[in-house]
Amino acid sequence: MEKKILEFLKENKENFISGEEISRNLKVSRTAIWKHIQNLKENGYEIIAQPHYGYRLNGVPDRLLPEEISYRLKAKIMGKRIFSYVTTTSTNDVAYMLAEQSMPEGTLVLSEKQTNGRGRMGRTWASPAKGGLYFSLILRPRITPTEAGKITLMASICTAKVLRDNYGIEAVIKWPNDVYVNQDKICGILTEMNAEQDGINFIILGIGVNVNTDPLKLPKGSTSLKHILNKKINRIEFLKKLLCELELYYIKLKNLKFEEIITDWRDLSVTLGRRIKVKWRSSIIEGQAMDIDSSGALIVRDDFGFLHHILSGDVRIIK
Amino acid sequence: MEKKILEFLKENKENFISGEEISRNLKVSRTAIWKHIQNLKENGYEIIAQPHYGYRLNGVPDRLLPEEISYRLKAKIMGKRIFSYVTTTSTNDVAYMLAEQSMPEGTLVLSEKQTNGRGRMGRTWASPAKGGLYFSLILRPRITPTEAGKITLMASICTAKVLRDNYGIEAVIKWPNDVYVNQDKICGILTEMNAEQDGINFIILGIGVNVNTDPLKLPKGSTSLKHILNKKINRIEFLKKLLCELELYYIKLKNLKFEEIITDWRDLSVTLGRRIKVKWRSSIIEGQAMDIDSSGALIVRDDFGFLHHILSGDVRIIK
Repeated sequence: MEKKILEFLKENKENFISGEEISRNLKVSRTAIWKHIQNLKENGYEIIAQPHYGYRLNGVPDRLLPEEISYRLKAKIMGKRIFSYVTTTSTNDVAYMLAEQSMPEGTLVLSEKQTNGRGRMGRTWASPAKGGLYFSLILRPRITPTEAGKITLMASICTAKVLRDNYGIEAVIKWPNDVYVNQDKICGILTEMNAEQDGINFIILGIGVNVNTDPLKLPKGSTSLKHILNKKINRIEFLKKLLCELELYYIKLKNLKFEEIITDWRDLSVTLGRRIKVKWRSSIIEGQAMDIDSSGALIVRDDFGFLHHILSGDVRIIK
Repeated sequence: MEKKILEFLKENKENFISGEEISRNLKVSRTAIWKHIQNLKENGYEIIAQPHYGYRLNGVPDRLLPEEISYRLKAKIMGKRIFSYVTTTSTNDVAYMLAEQSMPEGTLVLSEKQTNGRGRMGRTWASPAKGGLYFSLILRPRITPTEAGKITLMASICTAKVLRDNYGIEAVIKWPNDVYVNQDKICGILTEMNAEQDGINFIILGIGVNVNTDPLKLPKGSTSLKHILNKKINRIEFLKKLLCELELYYIKLKNLKFEEIITDWRDLSVTLGRRIKVKWRSSIIEGQAMDIDSSGALIVRDDFGFLHHILSGDVRIIK
């Protein structure tokens, strides 16, 4: 009922709306409405109650509330189920556990902060409270473990596109999975999987975006959307746009239109065409970044003319 | 203390050994020894107590007891920790859970029967009680998800080799992971992993061998070691040999000697050189099985001369 009252208030955001009208429309007593409104206010909703006029919604809390995310969300798969936490070790860990318990594709796990936010190759991902967006999606694509890199590529394209198309920010992708703005990292992606040789059981796609985070709370070389635009961004709106974009590309991927995805990736890549050094464990390959192949591997041509298809590693661009 | 008494009895298996001698050697009272012997007998050990002569170990129980497995086990990695169950859903599930809880490489999980034994691609693996050997090992190799197939190949080679070298059985391998004797399946392998794009966190190597299983309890097209040799086999001895073989090959794999492993695989393969049909999801490839590549993929040449590297699927040999 609270959700219904909230939706009613949202649909009439411009005006005051009387308790009587709500009562008539939702078929509950005015006393009950008053009680629900109190609950909403306690949860951070700014609701003005004016005698003789009624109620008006003045502001929603700056929290990753499931009902705010699912309100008029256009995505049908992404965000189908939503689990939102104030704090967790890592949203990937929670999503992994939920996936093991058969939660459906598109299940979304969010947290205001992570105490053990993880990045690629056992690194940490700084996840301070206040303003960050840390979330994980459960995906169940019918692909082999070798193709998992496609999911990471897809996610980096979507994040860069949302930043460009909606916020006018010149975001670029550093292979395989980092989104940069002016040499600073704004987003990181960690794809984890549970698989057998013949196919993936599920993938956890973890995305961390520095939306309103104070750069002083982040490692050197990081930036945030708020810092770049010099204003606070509505995280829920950002997330909803990103979920829709992810769904669009995920459907492309499922329909085997990976060539289209690669084309978009090429356009956004800051790695291609550059001279790079890739380090993976004890081996280093230096050469020209030529392209990516159909599994998402970076193709590097070394100085002897040999082509290397690299599925993982650390890339450094050589000036 | 029980373990010590047991080892003492084993080392003197040919003779009776007096309570006094055990007492002197292990520095415990004769009454305590008597109590421990009663416990051992309750656990299925056949111990004869002859007045004036002492004790003698006549037989060990036909159970997958950790102390029996680790007794003089030559493998140093495989079986480092042992968890033995009378019944589980699937040893892979238990091992997976233990791996998530940071159990070390080489941890071994066994079960007398599995209520939900799993095979490749969501199939079941018949795991009736009495005589089967169902176990899983936790491995933490530093390889990428693409290379996981190497572990499966390795395990099939080891099983076929133990069957050949120790039991004189002409075992062969059907790509990727089944061990056959005279057209009948004797062993199945299921490799599962927890990974990110850059590397595997852990692999669960699950092996099911029909050692003393009654073929009537198994699906059509299956056989057991006991059925072939017409005598009951000591499962613990079989397991210990297999663990040693697995360790040997795993060290080869870690030392990047995969070319040696491939050579052994070629020798044991019943797939290579044959005309085959590979089915994977909705696509079918028919052609000649040429070789396997460095990641364990089967190379098939179709009738147009194109080469396909196939990492997963169902293989049927065409007569």
